[in-house]
Amino acid sequence: MPVLVMKFGGTSVANLDRIRRAAKRVGVEVAKGYDVIVIVSAMSGKTNELVGWVGETSPLYDAREYDAVVSSGENVTAGLMALTLQEMGVPARSWQGWQVPLKTNDAHSQARIEEIPTDNINAKFGEGMKVAVVAGFQGISPEGRITTLGRGGSDTTAVAFAAAFEAERCDIYTDVDGVYTTDPRICAKARKLDKIAFEEMLELASLGAKVLQTRSVELAMRFKVKLRVLSSFEEQSDEAGTLVCDEEEIMESNVVNGVAYSRDEAKMTLISVADRPGIAATIFGSLSDAGVNVDMIIQNISEDGRTDMTFSCPTDQVARAEQALVAIKEQGELNYSELVADTEVAKVSVVGIGMRSQSGVAAKMFKILSNEGINIQVITTSEIKISVLIDRKYMELAVQALHDAFELDKA
Amino acid sequence: MPVLVMKFGGTSVANLDRIRRAAKRVGVEVAKGYDVIVIVSAMSGKTNELVGWVGETSPLYDAREYDAVVSSGENVTAGLMALTLQEMGVPARSWQGWQVPLKTNDAHSQARIEEIPTDNINAKFGEGMKVAVVAGFQGISPEGRITTLGRGGSDTTAVAFAAAFEAERCDIYTDVDGVYTTDPRICAKARKLDKIAFEEMLELASLGAKVLQTRSVELAMRFKVKLRVLSSFEEQSDEAGTLVCDEEEIMESNVVNGVAYSRDEAKMTLISVADRPGIAATIFGSLSDAGVNVDMIIQNISEDGRTDMTFSCPTDQVARAEQALVAIKEQGELNYSELVADTEVAKVSVVGIGMRSQSGVAAKMFKILSNEGINIQVITTSEIKISVLIDRKYMELAVQALHDAFELDKA
Repeated sequence: MPVLVMKFGGTSVANLDRIRRAAKRVGVEVAKGYDVIVIVSAMSGKTNELVGWVGETSPLYDAREYDAVVSSGENVTAGLMALTLQEMGVPARSWQGWQVPLKTNDAHSQARIEEIPTDNINAKFGEGMKVAVVAGFQGISPEGRITTLGRGGSDTTAVAFAAAFEAERCDIYTDVDGVYTTDPRICAKARKLDKIAFEEMLELASLGAKVLQTRSVELAMRFKVKLRVLSSFEEQSDEAGTLVCDEEEIMESNVVNGVAYSRDEAKMTLISVADRPGIAATIFGSLSDAGVNVDMIIQNISEDGRTDMTFSCPTDQVARAEQALVAIKEQGELNYSELVADTEVAKVSVVGIGMRSQSGVAAKMFKILSNEGINIQVITTSEIKISVLIDRKYMELAVQALHDAFELDKA
Repeated sequence: MPVLVMKFGGTSVANLDRIRRAAKRVGVEVAKGYDVIVIVSAMSGKTNELVGWVGETSPLYDAREYDAVVSSGENVTAGLMALTLQEMGVPARSWQGWQVPLKTNDAHSQARIEEIPTDNINAKFGEGMKVAVVAGFQGISPEGRITTLGRGGSDTTAVAFAAAFEAERCDIYTDVDGVYTTDPRICAKARKLDKIAFEEMLELASLGAKVLQTRSVELAMRFKVKLRVLSSFEEQSDEAGTLVCDEEEIMESNVVNGVAYSRDEAKMTLISVADRPGIAATIFGSLSDAGVNVDMIIQNISEDGRTDMTFSCPTDQVARAEQALVAIKEQGELNYSELVADTEVAKVSVVGIGMRSQSGVAAKMFKILSNEGINIQVITTSEIKISVLIDRKYMELAVQALHDAFELDKA
């Protein structure tokens, strides 16, 4: 039997009615002759509640206990989904991460998948089971403790299962009906894309478009998993949603295909750092060890052998970053006069594979922002995207102005 | 190091403040030099919520999925308790049932513990860990699926750990400060007992006094585990609460030591059953196969080769019982004219080891109830208890009258 992977996010399983609705979608695919692997998130709000409790209990928590706590929401939905399918007459059972077992490394709270054995689940498919419901977001470490894959990790679970089981497609059911040129909540003219290239999606995902977890897109690109994003709240045809696919499958593309933003950015500056070889390695090595995801980096012009070093990271990692940087100062590995954190910034980016062959996009972007009186604090670019860090209060304005000026509302 | 088992029920871990309070109690015992095993329930209300969702999804649920869902609440509390202890500087980690692994049989939703290997946890104690926090109520079946031990199963988990680790004592922290002569909520004169014999506690537990799960008391009696019930809401001395112990440790005892009741009883009657050998075996065999816990049984005088058969079972098993009895009728194994369920009954019992040597207790009990105009529907007795099934609306009245007449308010 061909295998289909279907992933339902938190809003798609937010209550028993929605679980029933999702189960009906699964039933439709089973009726078409698929063996289906369903990946479920926790009911919406549940994971946040658990994360809140952990943070309140222990601000610098033991990530192994964090994982044990926050993974529990998915177990609930997996069991309820299996029961709902059974109630509909569809043979189904649930699997928790450790039962598959979905093996990961031991990087707790942001573990990476190492292996998904297919024998257990395939044996059950062989016995007539039609749907394997798997709790997303979670796995098991070499030591036998529960790991989680980071926020949005259920997308990665889904793609990894699709790769392991050589699924025909991986359908990601969510609360939006596809991938948009930008967030429709802050730009009314946002337009749904029928197709988007893996690489564009990757940039959009990593830039804060919360439709798919970055790693899930990376994984889909590497293993050529056909990925479809679609709404669980609408009747669906086979062509619904947005297909994330190879560049070659897309006939023509705009220069800029999307405007992304990220609100939860912080800018941190180390003032008056001794400018000598190895200093960047010391700083970013220690941040990496502390699990801080550094995004943009700028180093000022050096003056009298000292410089300022600025970087950005997610707002919720600021405490961790501060702790790491204070530690290396106290250990004498680094000397700086001050550490300044600015949590009032946002990142706005334009993305498009067309940029590869078209010049002047950056200049146009800077001009648009300048026309709106928005000051650019940090710039980074890649082959297919340009990102700027700006004052957070201008974020919506910047997104709207860029969407208009690049005419993203037109196909 | 001597080992102490401490179990905290749902109200004792209902929120982060209460978990902190419980953790402080654990810290006190660690400071005395104990290696502590903490067994936690789910935050109060959580398990009921999960059970409700399962029931709403699938009235005759797959017990394997039920277990996967309802066991999740304990995982949350175990992780949060470990984090709280760590935050207090006490080396601690959490274990889920399958990680211990707490091995059970495959009787899902009412599984029995088969083995608790001690090596994993003892190895960690050897490395300096002071507290193992274990999610109560759950285990793992031979097939590797999650099992649960039935409502109140965390008590059984606690006693089983105390037996396996040869703990000095098993302290059950709950929302009451000990075992009472009856429920203080319905009888203001109820008096706390300093000590109670295992056998009395067993009868009280099985009769619906919800302080301890029946099986936990059975297990404690079998393995001679010193069991103490005490409040997590009061400052505690070593003598607080009620000690459940061997009969020999109790100097003198009243004839009746407790009045128990159970509200969730149903009376079912099979009308006009053919009275021939093997019929009771057929009826109660099928009920047992269906997982119905039959309590009291009466068979009427036979007339014209037919009789009525009455039994009681928990209210929430009525649907299951009906299904089983209809099935054997349809299969031609049993013939009866009607099946009547009365869910408006309650069971009231008096318990005391003194009954063994004192006669007339039953007569006195019936007289007391008769004086109050309460009709007795079914009677059962054991060496140390007498139970009656009565109309539920008289339940409180019966308890108060019996408590008064047997002078249970006096030590």
